[in-house]
Amino acid sequence: MSEKKHILDYDTVALDDEDSALVIIDQTQLPYNTEILHLKTQEEIWEAIYKLQVRGAPAIGVAAGYGIYLAAKSFSTESYDEFLLLFRKAKDYLNSSRPTAVNLSWALNRMERVVTSHKDLPVKEIIELLHKESAAIQEEDIETCRRIGEYGLSLVKPGDGLLTHCNAGQLATSKYGTATAPMYLGYERGYNFHIFADETRPLLQGARLTAYELMDSGLDVTLICDNMSASVMKKGWVNAVFVGCDRVAANGDAANKIGTSVVAAVAKYYNVPVYICAPTSTIDMNTPTGEQINIEQRPAEEVTEMWYKRRMAPEGIKVYNPAFDVTDNNLIAAIVTEYGIARAPYTQSLKEIMRKKEEAEKLKQK
Amino acid sequence: MSEKKHILDYDTVALDDEDSALVIIDQTQLPYNTEILHLKTQEEIWEAIYKLQVRGAPAIGVAAGYGIYLAAKSFSTESYDEFLLLFRKAKDYLNSSRPTAVNLSWALNRMERVVTSHKDLPVKEIIELLHKESAAIQEEDIETCRRIGEYGLSLVKPGDGLLTHCNAGQLATSKYGTATAPMYLGYERGYNFHIFADETRPLLQGARLTAYELMDSGLDVTLICDNMSASVMKKGWVNAVFVGCDRVAANGDAANKIGTSVVAAVAKYYNVPVYICAPTSTIDMNTPTGEQINIEQRPAEEVTEMWYKRRMAPEGIKVYNPAFDVTDNNLIAAIVTEYGIARAPYTQSLKEIMRKKEEAEKLKQK
Repeated sequence: MSEKKHILDYDTVALDDEDSALVIIDQTQLPYNTEILHLKTQEEIWEAIYKLQVRGAPAIGVAAGYGIYLAAKSFSTESYDEFLLLFRKAKDYLNSSRPTAVNLSWALNRMERVVTSHKDLPVKEIIELLHKESAAIQEEDIETCRRIGEYGLSLVKPGDGLLTHCNAGQLATSKYGTATAPMYLGYERGYNFHIFADETRPLLQGARLTAYELMDSGLDVTLICDNMSASVMKKGWVNAVFVGCDRVAANGDAANKIGTSVVAAVAKYYNVPVYICAPTSTIDMNTPTGEQINIEQRPAEEVTEMWYKRRMAPEGIKVYNPAFDVTDNNLIAAIVTEYGIARAPYTQSLKEIMRKKEEAEKLKQK
Repeated sequence: MSEKKHILDYDTVALDDEDSALVIIDQTQLPYNTEILHLKTQEEIWEAIYKLQVRGAPAIGVAAGYGIYLAAKSFSTESYDEFLLLFRKAKDYLNSSRPTAVNLSWALNRMERVVTSHKDLPVKEIIELLHKESAAIQEEDIETCRRIGEYGLSLVKPGDGLLTHCNAGQLATSKYGTATAPMYLGYERGYNFHIFADETRPLLQGARLTAYELMDSGLDVTLICDNMSASVMKKGWVNAVFVGCDRVAANGDAANKIGTSVVAAVAKYYNVPVYICAPTSTIDMNTPTGEQINIEQRPAEEVTEMWYKRRMAPEGIKVYNPAFDVTDNNLIAAIVTEYGIARAPYTQSLKEIMRKKEEAEKLKQK
C-alpha cells in the first residue's frame, strides 16, 4: 500500500496504531517518487532500516521505537517471562539491521527498560507503556529540532540567503531536521529565505534529499555544486550557513559530512557566519578536540563509478574518500542546540549547555 | 588507423608530414582508451575540433596551424591567386569548427599572413613557409609551457604535495600543460611530488583528464572530490596549489574553472600558497579587475543529469551553474608566466611581465 502526498503532510516516520503499521517515506525512491510505505511485519521494518529506506540517526531511533512497540503488540501471551523473551528476540533482530547506528540500539534499550522496570504490571499495560515511550521518543526528537529551529531563526532575518551542505533535513529526523529547522520555521512565518543546497559529493545527499525536501515543501531552493559556494558568497547572496553535525568535541570542533570544513573556510573568507546545528546528543564532552575524532574512509568506487553510466576516472587511480571532515572551532560562529546557542570559547559555553540539559532532565524525572 | 601508446611519447597534437596527417589523442575516449587518430582530410580535422577530440585553447591553435598547412599542401595549383582562394576557403571552413575559440582564428590568421606577405614566391615555397610557421606555433606553445614549468618548479621542493583543479594539463596544450608543467618537469628530475587532483564538478575534467594524464605518465596522483581539499590541506599533505587560468585582469584577479576560488580560500586558511600558471596570452591588461570579467552560465542539466544513469536531483529544481569563477588577487601567492613570476602588487608586476614580453618579441623580429 502506498500513496503520493506532500512531504510536509507526513512526518518522515510515523505510527499508524489503528493499522498497526510503521509509516515511512521510502528514501531510496527519492528524488523520483514520494512513496509512502506502511510496514507491518518485523521483517518489513528490519528491511526498511537495512536498505536505508529510513535513514538519519534520529529517524532510525524513532523507527526502532515504533518498530519494537508494534512487535510487542503482536505477541499473544499474558506471561511476563514469555513476553520478555519474545521482546528481547525482537529487539536483537531489529538491532541487527544496522549494528553501527547508535540511535538504533539507544532507542531499543530505552524501550527494553520500560519492560524490565514494570515486570509486576500485566503485559497489556506494559504494551500501553511501550506505546507511550515510543511516542515520547518521537515527540522529543521533534521538540529538539523545533527548538534548534527557533534558536537558529533568531540568528537570521527575513529575506536572507542561507546555504546548507549535505542533508541535515527532516528526512534525517522525524520532523524539521536540524540545519533545515530554521528554514522550515522561517517558511511557516513568511521569512522568504533564498536557500542554496550544495550537492555534496560523492553521495549527493544535497541534490537527492535536501533539494528535494525543501522544494517539495515549497521553499525557494537553488542547487549548486560543492565548488560553487565561493561564487554565491562573493555575490553577497549568502547571509548564513547552517549545517548539521555528527559529533561536536568539547572545544567546539565539529565533525560533519565531508566538505563542511571547505564551506566553513570559504565562508570565513567572505565573512559569512557558519552555524552548526547540534542536538546535545551529538555533543561529546569526552572528546577534547577534533583531533581525536576518527574519520571513516570509504570506497574509491563512490568517487569513480557510483551513479554514473560509465566509470569517470582512469582504472587503478588512487582515491582519497573520507566520509567526514572536522571544522575547526574558530571557523564556527555558533553552535545551535535545543538548550540554546553556544559561542566561543566553546569549552565554557558547551559545558553550560550540558548543565542546562542535565537540569532539564532532572526536572522531567521529578 | 589508431594505436595505443604512452601519452608522454606523443605530443597531444603532432604533425606527421611524411604521412600528411595531423596526429592527436582522441580526448573524447579518455579516460577509457588512449586512441591516437591520424587525420588526413580537412573534414576529419574539422570534425576533431568540433567534437572536442582535441580541446584546450593552445592545443586547438596548434591543430589549426597544422590543419591549414596540410590543406595548403594538398592544393594542386601553381597559381598564387588560385592558391590564395583555396587557402581562404579552407581557412573559413576550419574556422567554423569552433567559432568562439580565440586561438583557432588567431592561428589561422597567423598562417594566412604567411601567404599574403609572400605573394611573389612560388606556391611551393609558400607551402614550405607554412610548414615552418605551423611548427613554430607548436614550438612556441611548448616553450611557453616549459618556461612556466621551470618558473613554477622554482617555487617548490622535492617530495612536496601539490594540488590542482580542473585540467590545465598537457591535454589542453601540445605538451607539459601550464599548471601541470612544474609537475612534469619535476617528475623528469626525480622530484617525487604527491599530486592531488580535484575531480572538478560538473564536467569532471580533473577525474577524466588530469588524473588520467598524470597517472598515465607515471606521476603519483590521488583523485579527490572538490569538497575534500580542506581535508588534505589540514593533514599537511599540500605544499602548493597550481592552477591554470582563462583570463588574468590587470590587478591580478584571475578567472578560471569554477571552484578555483573555493580552493584558493581554503588554501588561504591553511596557509598553502596558490600559484596561477598563466601564459601571457591570458593576461588582459585592458580588464582592470575581476569585476569586469563576464562569467558564462551553463545548463542545469550538467549538474542534475550529465554522466548519470538517472537524474540525481528533483525535476524542476533551480540550478546555478557558472562555468568559471574569479579568484581575488589577495588569495594568489604568485602568477607564473613564461616571462617570470609576478607577485603582489600585481598592477605593477604584471606590467613588468608584459614589458619583458614586448622586448622579447621585438628581439625576435630583428
